[in-house]
Amino acid sequence: MTQAHDTKQRLLDTAQKLFYARSYEDVGVQEICREADVKKGSFYHFFPSKRDLTLDMLDASWKEFRETELPAVFASDIPPLQRLERFLDMQYRHHKAVKEQTGQVLGCPYGNLAGEMSTQDEAIRERVLSIFRDLEAPIEAVLAEAVTAGDLEKLDTRATAAAMVAYIEGLTLLAKTHNDPEVVRTLGPAMLNLVVPVSEG
Amino acid sequence: MTQAHDTKQRLLDTAQKLFYARSYEDVGVQEICREADVKKGSFYHFFPSKRDLTLDMLDASWKEFRETELPAVFASDIPPLQRLERFLDMQYRHHKAVKEQTGQVLGCPYGNLAGEMSTQDEAIRERVLSIFRDLEAPIEAVLAEAVTAGDLEKLDTRATAAAMVAYIEGLTLLAKTHNDPEVVRTLGPAMLNLVVPVSEG
Repeated sequence: MTQAHDTKQRLLDTAQKLFYARSYEDVGVQEICREADVKKGSFYHFFPSKRDLTLDMLDASWKEFRETELPAVFASDIPPLQRLERFLDMQYRHHKAVKEQTGQVLGCPYGNLAGEMSTQDEAIRERVLSIFRDLEAPIEAVLAEAVTAGDLEKLDTRATAAAMVAYIEGLTLLAKTHNDPEVVRTLGPAMLNLVVPVSEG
Repeated sequence: MTQAHDTKQRLLDTAQKLFYARSYEDVGVQEICREADVKKGSFYHFFPSKRDLTLDMLDASWKEFRETELPAVFASDIPPLQRLERFLDMQYRHHKAVKEQTGQVLGCPYGNLAGEMSTQDEAIRERVLSIFRDLEAPIEAVLAEAVTAGDLEKLDTRATAAAMVAYIEGLTLLAKTHNDPEVVRTLGPAMLNLVVPVSEG
């Protein structure tokens, strides 16, 4: 049972690494099995298809990020707006480290899948959408806290959080296109200006 | 000669349509030829590879957009900041029309390629990068004009234009992930708050 769990995990980790470095369509089940050192029959024992593996992979990787990275970044040891700066800094350090390891800025693993697969696979599109919404939640909470503390004028916290997620995704795509993590460092702080006012009526 | 030109153009148009609806990797030369009603030998007479066709396609489609759509959007018949609003409105109307035609928000054809191919093909990455830079130019000019007119405080016009392009790309990706063009309409105007101050020293 432990061995089965290890095999499944190895398939998930390998697929994640390969998709992130290239793309979903460019990586087939055969390559995932070869890289993970798992027989093809074993793959289909765990996953009916590459798409099913991908949905499990998204769930697992997002769960880890949400439960470990996000609480640390959004911890209330510093004032709310500084937490957004810490979040941007985490993004920058991630892309810098990935570039040092691979020679490339790989972008956002969720944004990459959304861009490539949203028109081709409804289940993948919806899964990434729920991840984007999940990411908006702590940003929205920080904005609400900043408004209460008087650090920000009253604003539409929900729409502003969505705008900030859009900006991070766009910035990450721009950094990938430049193959330069410095794009995130230099343009990131402008995110704090993205304010959607409370709509009237 | 006219016939050859027609054939080549049909291959370019067909590839553009198919890539935009799905992805680069999901569409092969065979399908492009079938849809364009062109023999495979004829394809390779015009293009050594799918990648070469793609570079030509990017050049041609961007040239058309830059020479027809952009001058109309950024024409000086209205104050500078209103031109940015007109640009956002053009984006929204485009995604709305595409959704009505196809049932889907297809995203940005350049951003899609950048996200999928930047780590896999240097020539495609560089071509899309030069398109992003080209798009920054009229935005930068509008910002400079707005500063001169006193509509904006002094700012780093170049960095702000890059931040705005990042935001548009991210917003487009978010709209694609929601499969909803309204994302562009509701969150678009926040782009005008994205200001990168002039750096000191």
